[in-house]
Amino acid sequence: MTYRQLIARFGSASAALAAVPGLARRGGGAPPRLFGREEAEREIARVEKLGARYLVLGQGLYPRLLAELEDAPPLLMAKGNLNLLDRMAVAIVGARNASAAACRFARGLAHDLGQQELVVVSGLARGIDSAAHDGALETGTIGVVAGGIDVFYPPENEERQKALYERGLVLAEMPPGTEPRARHFPYRNRIIAGISAGTVVVEAAPRSGSLITARLAAEAGREVMAVPGSPLDPRAQGCNRLIRDGATLVQNAGDVIEQLRPLEPRVRSGPADYEPARADLVNGDEALAAVEELLGPSPVPVDEIIRLSGASSGAVQMALLELDLAGRLDRHAGNKVSLREA
Amino acid sequence: MTYRQLIARFGSASAALAAVPGLARRGGGAPPRLFGREEAEREIARVEKLGARYLVLGQGLYPRLLAELEDAPPLLMAKGNLNLLDRMAVAIVGARNASAAACRFARGLAHDLGQQELVVVSGLARGIDSAAHDGALETGTIGVVAGGIDVFYPPENEERQKALYERGLVLAEMPPGTEPRARHFPYRNRIIAGISAGTVVVEAAPRSGSLITARLAAEAGREVMAVPGSPLDPRAQGCNRLIRDGATLVQNAGDVIEQLRPLEPRVRSGPADYEPARADLVNGDEALAAVEELLGPSPVPVDEIIRLSGASSGAVQMALLELDLAGRLDRHAGNKVSLREA
Repeated sequence: MTYRQLIARFGSASAALAAVPGLARRGGGAPPRLFGREEAEREIARVEKLGARYLVLGQGLYPRLLAELEDAPPLLMAKGNLNLLDRMAVAIVGARNASAAACRFARGLAHDLGQQELVVVSGLARGIDSAAHDGALETGTIGVVAGGIDVFYPPENEERQKALYERGLVLAEMPPGTEPRARHFPYRNRIIAGISAGTVVVEAAPRSGSLITARLAAEAGREVMAVPGSPLDPRAQGCNRLIRDGATLVQNAGDVIEQLRPLEPRVRSGPADYEPARADLVNGDEALAAVEELLGPSPVPVDEIIRLSGASSGAVQMALLELDLAGRLDRHAGNKVSLREA
Repeated sequence: MTYRQLIARFGSASAALAAVPGLARRGGGAPPRLFGREEAEREIARVEKLGARYLVLGQGLYPRLLAELEDAPPLLMAKGNLNLLDRMAVAIVGARNASAAACRFARGLAHDLGQQELVVVSGLARGIDSAAHDGALETGTIGVVAGGIDVFYPPENEERQKALYERGLVLAEMPPGTEPRARHFPYRNRIIAGISAGTVVVEAAPRSGSLITARLAAEAGREVMAVPGSPLDPRAQGCNRLIRDGATLVQNAGDVIEQLRPLEPRVRSGPADYEPARADLVNGDEALAAVEELLGPSPVPVDEIIRLSGASSGAVQMALLELDLAGRLDRHAGNKVSLREA
């Protein structure tokens, strides 16, 4: 989001980079360390050597639906068949320790959706993810990894990930060589949800990563679907809860396609509009002071800060950006922010 | 419905009985055979001898929610603990050949709902119905039978039905001695749905009686709830379909109670208003001719007939009543009617 707001404010990457130190100082912190030109060039060379390429927000092949997210990744690395980015995609996610029956179900569902020309997206994890990729390998599947594009995690999925380089597509946001850590998975999940017209959850525990993906999909205005199970089966609790909370119950590919068909025009109508808009800077100091006063350790909606501060939306966003660059802001789901504990 | 409309039109049962032959003649048929006073007295004596009593629409103990139905039964026979009619009721219905796990689930659900002072209603059939009655026998359960109040069907449920005479309540619409036939079950199902604030379906096949009960509950503005199951389990298809079509997914008694709590005031606010309103009779002949012309063998909504005929609602209802008494009308779900094939 910081990237997006900087570009929106300064119109170009180089202007934004030049402005960052001053913004951070205004926000009350030390200027952040910026990635230098040489480092960047080394990384670009490494990505090219890996046979991967960059997808840039607002340019070329960058997936249109993903660009709709407020926190769309500015850069993605992609390795494999880039044509898959042109087709409507559906995510299939679920538990790593899913039952054999659920994995079989996920594989069959992925296969049937592939037959209908949908691309199946998942996270290259154990269990449901692996089954979903396997079912759609012939027709088209995208694996989004939490670490670098050249890192195999879990290790036993190395062959599967290599198969996706060859016959599917692998996407990564983190730089090459990054080992995935717990904090990377929610970022990965937003890409899975964001790239897809809908997300189907197959067997997920309550409070699991799959449910985060489902929530992110709902927040992005995508279809959330879940496969039900018996209340006597503890592994069905997450999906049943999702359905109770409004997700669509699906039992087969036909059910999924019925939900997604209305989204097709949105997916296929060409590259995303991405037009940086210039924000105003009037009364920047006053806005910064007002915003700082309104912020505390508990997350508050940005809209509420705009309303309470009496400043313009642009001025508030700029103040938040300054605090962010100064390392003093935390951003939360639902467009909420809090002051970071010192 | 005919009963209700006759009373609405003529204000009393005796006035309606006197008018029936004339109405039938106007509708183009022979006057129907009416139940005579002696026959009626014999039946009343028989009901009393069975230890049962009548519940009369619009009077005394007649269940308030049931009276809301357009086609509420004018008379019911009841045997057992009539106090159960004062408490909020929930129906639990499902397949006769349900799995052992589903029967165990239904019994537990009925037990837990009973602990929350809900009365559990079901149809005294095999499978889910029997399990539901058993689970709530201690706390209060109502069995609605399709035949006469003294008829045990299926025969192996004789002991269970007798237990309900003693510790629960049995309701019947058909006269004593009536053996249940296929056509009686949908009538029975409307009573189960109508007496209950909500209906929970546990394991039902597509196109089964349980789904009819669910549809009738929805039409009556009651909560429809269903227990999900795996798409791999054919016995879960009916419930999953119901949920997909809008029924609330429930996994336990807490889920059910959460749905029903808002209906409580409606259940408990005393006896039903039941005030016969007088319909107009202006231009009765013209209306009858217009209505006849609009009717055919395919069911048509009564509202549409009113609109197309240009006659008043009361006049159309009266014309339909005349055709009905003449044996020339069929009434269908959703307030539709058709002309009976000669």
